[in-house]
Amino acid sequence: MNTRDAFALTRAAGATLTEQLASQFAERIRQRLLAPGARLPSVRDCARRHGVSAHTVVAAYDQLLAQGLVEARRQRGFFVRESQRAPASGPHVAPAAVAAEVPVRVAPVDATALIRGMFHGVSHLPAPGLGTLPPDWLDLPMLASALRRVLSHGDATLALQYGQPAGDVRLREALATKLADFGVRARSSQIVTATGATHALDIVSRALLSPGDAVLVDEPGWAVEYARLTQLGMRLLPVPRTADGPDLAVMATLAREHRPRMYVTVSVLHNPTGHSISLGDAHQVLKLAEAHDFFIVEDDTYAHLAPAHLPRLAALDGLQRTLYVSGFSKILTPSWRVGYVAAPPSLVERLIDVKLLSTLTTPAVLEQAVAHCLEQGSLRRHAERVTARLDAARHRSVQLAQAHGCRFVTPPQGLFGWVDTGVDTESLAQTLLDEGWLLAPGHLFHATRRPSTVMRINFATSQDARFWQAFGRGRHPSS
Amino acid sequence: MNTRDAFALTRAAGATLTEQLASQFAERIRQRLLAPGARLPSVRDCARRHGVSAHTVVAAYDQLLAQGLVEARRQRGFFVRESQRAPASGPHVAPAAVAAEVPVRVAPVDATALIRGMFHGVSHLPAPGLGTLPPDWLDLPMLASALRRVLSHGDATLALQYGQPAGDVRLREALATKLADFGVRARSSQIVTATGATHALDIVSRALLSPGDAVLVDEPGWAVEYARLTQLGMRLLPVPRTADGPDLAVMATLAREHRPRMYVTVSVLHNPTGHSISLGDAHQVLKLAEAHDFFIVEDDTYAHLAPAHLPRLAALDGLQRTLYVSGFSKILTPSWRVGYVAAPPSLVERLIDVKLLSTLTTPAVLEQAVAHCLEQGSLRRHAERVTARLDAARHRSVQLAQAHGCRFVTPPQGLFGWVDTGVDTESLAQTLLDEGWLLAPGHLFHATRRPSTVMRINFATSQDARFWQAFGRGRHPSS
Repeated sequence: MNTRDAFALTRAAGATLTEQLASQFAERIRQRLLAPGARLPSVRDCARRHGVSAHTVVAAYDQLLAQGLVEARRQRGFFVRESQRAPASGPHVAPAAVAAEVPVRVAPVDATALIRGMFHGVSHLPAPGLGTLPPDWLDLPMLASALRRVLSHGDATLALQYGQPAGDVRLREALATKLADFGVRARSSQIVTATGATHALDIVSRALLSPGDAVLVDEPGWAVEYARLTQLGMRLLPVPRTADGPDLAVMATLAREHRPRMYVTVSVLHNPTGHSISLGDAHQVLKLAEAHDFFIVEDDTYAHLAPAHLPRLAALDGLQRTLYVSGFSKILTPSWRVGYVAAPPSLVERLIDVKLLSTLTTPAVLEQAVAHCLEQGSLRRHAERVTARLDAARHRSVQLAQAHGCRFVTPPQGLFGWVDTGVDTESLAQTLLDEGWLLAPGHLFHATRRPSTVMRINFATSQDARFWQAFGRGRHPSS
Repeated sequence: MNTRDAFALTRAAGATLTEQLASQFAERIRQRLLAPGARLPSVRDCARRHGVSAHTVVAAYDQLLAQGLVEARRQRGFFVRESQRAPASGPHVAPAAVAAEVPVRVAPVDATALIRGMFHGVSHLPAPGLGTLPPDWLDLPMLASALRRVLSHGDATLALQYGQPAGDVRLREALATKLADFGVRARSSQIVTATGATHALDIVSRALLSPGDAVLVDEPGWAVEYARLTQLGMRLLPVPRTADGPDLAVMATLAREHRPRMYVTVSVLHNPTGHSISLGDAHQVLKLAEAHDFFIVEDDTYAHLAPAHLPRLAALDGLQRTLYVSGFSKILTPSWRVGYVAAPPSLVERLIDVKLLSTLTTPAVLEQAVAHCLEQGSLRRHAERVTARLDAARHRSVQLAQAHGCRFVTPPQGLFGWVDTGVDTESLAQTLLDEGWLLAPGHLFHATRRPSTVMRINFATSQDARFWQAFGRGRHPSS
């Protein structure tokens, strides 16, 4: 793991400069911080950036070539080799409003690049590309205390046996109460817990879809969702998501032409745009779903960072054809992996079956600790503190971003800002990574690989003026 | 949840006897304790068993018919309706040594019947059909103490952030040391943690297989594995597993004719037969795998209940084409869901990608607590106590089973006995369930549904003389 601030070479080390440079690129490729298909810096740029000769860079690139990590493309330079692990039958992505299907591979490796970067902790600096709250915003004493209480006061045998197939009953009851705050009326018997919201989405996909099914997804959106659906053999139908909401005309056309089985959407505080669906659009989406008979999977991962009054599709629909997915990674801690799905009663047993086939049950001890935080109101008080702090952070981050020439593509809301930098963010991300700053370049949020000048910033981790200075230098390398 | 000892009707209740009988059958069908395709008792048997008139039974069955839960088959009686949720493209099961493929659906609902029964706790009686150690055999203080220690001494920020993609590094290092006891040499970088061994198997299947691939499986075997592979669209190739080990001739024929991509096997203390592979057979299996170029997935779930010296395929193979899967559900607790896979270095990144797509990461706090139990030797001491107690329980259970006319199909070893009762165990299981005893009938361990006179008993929960008396009555209802 590279925890240095900079991608620094040293003349004193045992290895030659060529070897150091090659091994640092190799490590970055292995960690997916340089994704398959990404272009390596030009020899001139690389030499200038690292203060070495062009000969050293050429020799290092040759080593990478010999190791099979990169390939040379005539007149264009060096590129990270595409992985050869795509499924034999390439899934399809149908571009919006284009009837003919264009086969495009979405490699899971692209999707996992960002989260691997987040996990690996590229440096001790704040990570503007982070997808969660930074650790110092979380409440460790609250979590530890809840867990201790479960261990000492909980039903000891409950903590030892397999959890119930649907999940801990105490948590499911607390969730049923909590969901009422959002206007979602669910009995605890309609709730199935999962190893985080990602697992809940995985269970839903596997229970309701068959390979080859078409699925509507928001674009831009969360690449892990694209990759997971693709890995399961589904065809993605991207629906543009802008400051005006999901493009309903495109959605209607895609629904008519491709007969999707499902629409997966983050309706509130959408990742990466921060957009929340309007009441009117929510109504129209539900009408389309009814007319074309598809399920809606509402991913409300950012629920605790949003005002409760924002409309949820599941509330309008009364959980008839909507499945509501959420979790606690964005408010309590991402490390406990507690998530859930609330579903129409007729689908619950099917979801439990798939859950059993994928992980059997989920850890009851962590579910009970989350239930404790819900029941005692400590989660609610923590969420109030976090949202107030986030409001201040957003205010500061927006000012800094705008002062550095960024334009917000959608109005800043919630945890993420979706900002146009005016330059290609994939190469910008590489440049800033050399200085220890992790970015979330826009191409990671598209179902089809495309150059992008947009990036996602996390308001909680983009308040550092040093970052924006580095950003300014990286964006105008000549100045 | 029905926690009564008997499936008892009461004349004093508000509902009529017909309604009570119908609703009890409906509940059992819902919980999968009566699986799709299962035959309801004959009207005469049911009337006799519950002390009601034939008219009452007919009326109850009519209610179930009206609710769509059962169907009548001419001259044959009433059957639980098959679920309509099978995937559109029915997967195939190729019977051993038969080249022509016979399409047979393996419904996940069949597979989850037993585990749902285990989770629901049909009564307060010991459950001979249980798949784990009973709770009073586990060491709650040890687990609670390990978890408390992690909370107070662990790296606080580690407990809050996403775990590392591959899993907690401390656990992976402890596992690498532990695996050396079995002769499996793995570096910690070859180990990926999962939400239990089931999740590890799920990750492996999704990373290495594509829908339509053929997979060799042991038969009898663990139905959740059959169901999961089937749900993912694979073709099952059952290899008979007897007291003499896997049928290598059948395996060779299947390998030649179907070109399988993988063999999934519990090599040590196989579920349900208790059989452990011999060194010679292990060598032959590896030669077949090499000749026909398939992966071996070795599920060593019962590792801690077996002598360390038993040969592991992964040890012979040196993790070249073998992936080794295990976990702690059968020794520490099934509720924490801590499992892992040790894999050839070239496959590790692919496994991590699929793990990220399915659950992102796994709960670091539980992984660190398990690491603590490994490091401190408390797991080893606990395992020694458990195996000594299990030896005594097995001795007593075997005597009771043999005294009641059961024959062990394979020599009794480990946690499970595979016993021939001489009668159909599916109907026997229904009869005994009425008295609160959960059985594991043989048909649940076959890839294709077939009548079976065999059942799996858990030695730890089959020592109660009352069970064997009920068994005797159930097997000879006329005597």
